[in-house]
Formats: sequence, structure tokens, C-alpha cells
Amino acid sequence: MSLLESLHWRYATKKFDATKKVAQEDVDKIVEAARLAPTSSGLQQFQVLVISNQELKEKIVPIAFDQQIVADSSHLLVFAAWDRYTAERIDTTYDRTTDARGLPRGRFSSYTDRLKAMYLNQSAEENFVHTARQSYIGFSLAIAQAAELKIDATPVEGFDSGQLDALLDLPSLGLKSVTLLPIGYRDPENDWLANMKKFRNPKEDFVIEIK
Amino acid sequence: MSLLESLHWRYATKKFDATKKVAQEDVDKIVEAARLAPTSSGLQQFQVLVISNQELKEKIVPIAFDQQIVADSSHLLVFAAWDRYTAERIDTTYDRTTDARGLPRGRFSSYTDRLKAMYLNQSAEENFVHTARQSYIGFSLAIAQAAELKIDATPVEGFDSGQLDALLDLPSLGLKSVTLLPIGYRDPENDWLANMKKFRNPKEDFVIEIK
Repeated sequence: MSLLESLHWRYATKKFDATKKVAQEDVDKIVEAARLAPTSSGLQQFQVLVISNQELKEKIVPIAFDQQIVADSSHLLVFAAWDRYTAERIDTTYDRTTDARGLPRGRFSSYTDRLKAMYLNQSAEENFVHTARQSYIGFSLAIAQAAELKIDATPVEGFDSGQLDALLDLPSLGLKSVTLLPIGYRDPENDWLANMKKFRNPKEDFVIEIK
Repeated sequence: MSLLESLHWRYATKKFDATKKVAQEDVDKIVEAARLAPTSSGLQQFQVLVISNQELKEKIVPIAFDQQIVADSSHLLVFAAWDRYTAERIDTTYDRTTDARGLPRGRFSSYTDRLKAMYLNQSAEENFVHTARQSYIGFSLAIAQAAELKIDATPVEGFDSGQLDALLDLPSLGLKSVTLLPIGYRDPENDWLANMKKFRNPKEDFVIEIK
């Protein structure tokens, strides 16, 4: 299935069939798409939590404003971004990159020095605006990968991130939750949105061509 | 090509072959992937500018910190998000959605009233943090669509958005630029990154599974 076909097929599923589970190899592919996401300066400023534990998913329902899709999903993915930049985080990534490429460590030090000068002079809040944006690139690719596999995935921003961070102990990892992605299989007979026409603004209102 | 194959194939091209142009039908597919992107509450809080005008691309090079890929690209895509939410923007989208679905206008008014209560009580800056995030979902799908077509695309955040907005007259449209995506065809002999191994953090450092 082409990407465009996948994007036409998918929709923000409002009701999952809680009896159907996504196979581990498919979960792995969805996570892999997020892992391969391009990110600013290649820093991969986010991680993904994959929660299949039913009790934990149910604890998250009230944190997610009582959205039952969280509990009914097969797996709940949590996209969590770095709470701030640190010199160590930048150096670790670049040391790994040079190691993987057979280059001497420090090969990109003039570049990483510039990154540090920029990010370490910002507030943690400013850093997080940037790291959270990177997580959306992976989030989007995970949605696309799920659709390619005909797995439903519902992008969710509506939750109390402070409460979720505390529940998942994300501060100890230097992470803050950004988005949720419950995945599973639709229950179309009980989903009011399942048979509604997808609407997007027409191309002429979306694109501005300058030739 | 599967999405994962596309993501392995792509890289942040540093040197385009300026003589090779992307066919209009392929440009259209890349924009279409962005247009089909899911967005928060279905509001499509961003638009895409597609610039093939060479003079304009060259004017943007200094705004983009002298990155020559902007001029050498076949087309430069600019992702620009709403500078703020307005009641009119929310109502227009929902009127179009209900019209497309054959539902009475106002069918979702309790929902849109909640959106207005939330967003219209935020500052324009807070609004833009949110709208800009949505643009990354489309940005990411455009990157993936380009790769599926074996078209190179380089995600670019490094530019002066204020200067670019002024040049493109985006304030008159209520938009602010977020990211650039020059697309084209790689010139591997002159691209230092073309033959470097792609590095990503290994899965065990990226995923946290809670079973």
C-alpha cells in the first residue's frame, strides 16, 4: 500500500475492539519507523514507551480525560521528549555517531560546540519546545507505519502530561510526555467516526505555489 | 517500497544536483501527503508554500544561514502554521467538515465551543506552540512521501523565521514559517554525507516496554 493509500485508509479511531491485539512484530515495525525518524542535528530528542500492561493503561484513562480508547487499545505508545538539552546528551549522540561511522570522536566538535552554545543558553522550557517538535516527526511516522500495516492508531494530545509524567516516572529519565498513540483494531459498528467521510481542506486552500 | 525501506533509503541530503527537477506530479504527491496529515481536532493548522522560482529561492539562501541546498533544490517547501487560533478559523473548518459529511452546521458546536474556550484564552505565542507542532506531522509525511518516490528531501529548521515571514508576506495570511523542506535529487559525488552510515540510537535505548 502506498503512503497516500495508507493515509486515505486511516482515521482517528474512536472505538477499538479490545479483544484484538497487535502482533509484537507489527508493534516493532511501528516503533522502528519512529526510531528512524529524522531529527534536528540527528539528536533523537525523544523516546517511545510501549505500554501493553492493562492495569497501567486503565490508570491512564482518567489522566487522558476519560478517553476509553486508552484502555481498549492493544498497546499505548507514549512519545516523550527530552526535558532539556545537556552537553552530555549531545556528546553521547555524537560519540555514538562517529563510532558507528569509523570516525574519530570529536570529528564534529565545532558543530556540537555551536549546538551547546545555542541550546544550553536557553531555558528548559525553550529547549522542550524544540525537543517536543522532534517527537512529532516520529509520532507521524508511527501513525503512517501503523496504517501501512492496517493497524488503527489514534493521535492523542488530550491528557494531563504532568500527571502522566509522574505516573511513568519520566522525570527520572529526563523526559516529558508529549503525545499518546493508542494502537489496535477498530470496532466500526461502535465507532461513530468510522463511516464518516474524511475531510481535509482542498488543495487550493492548502498549497501556495510560487513559480 | 515499504515505509521502513523508504526511511532507510533517505538521508538529509547536503548537496543537490541543481540541474535535476522534480516532476510536478511528484511534487503534488508530496504536498498531498502533508495535506492528508492528521492534525489536532482536524483543524489543519498549517499550509505549505511550494517555491520553484529560482530568484526567490536564492533570496532565501542568506535567510537560511547560507545553506546552498535551498538554491540548488528543485522546489523549496515552506511549512507555515497559523499564528494564532481564531473563532473564524475553527468555525470555517467545522462548517466545511459538516458540509462534506452532509451534517447540519453546528453539529459539533459543543466541541468547537470547548476548543474556543481553550485556545482563545491562550496567548498567540501559546497558540503557535501548538499549531507549529501540527505542522511537523505534515512535514514528516512529506519527507516520507518524497522518500517513497526516491526524491531527496532535507529537513531544515535553521533559518530566520521572522525574515522569511516578511519576505513571503506570511503575516498577511496569518501564518508563521516553521520548517523548510528543499526537495530534489542528490549529487552524491559532492555530498559529504551521502556515503556515511545512518546512525540511530539502538532500539534498547529508544524504546521502553511496559508489559
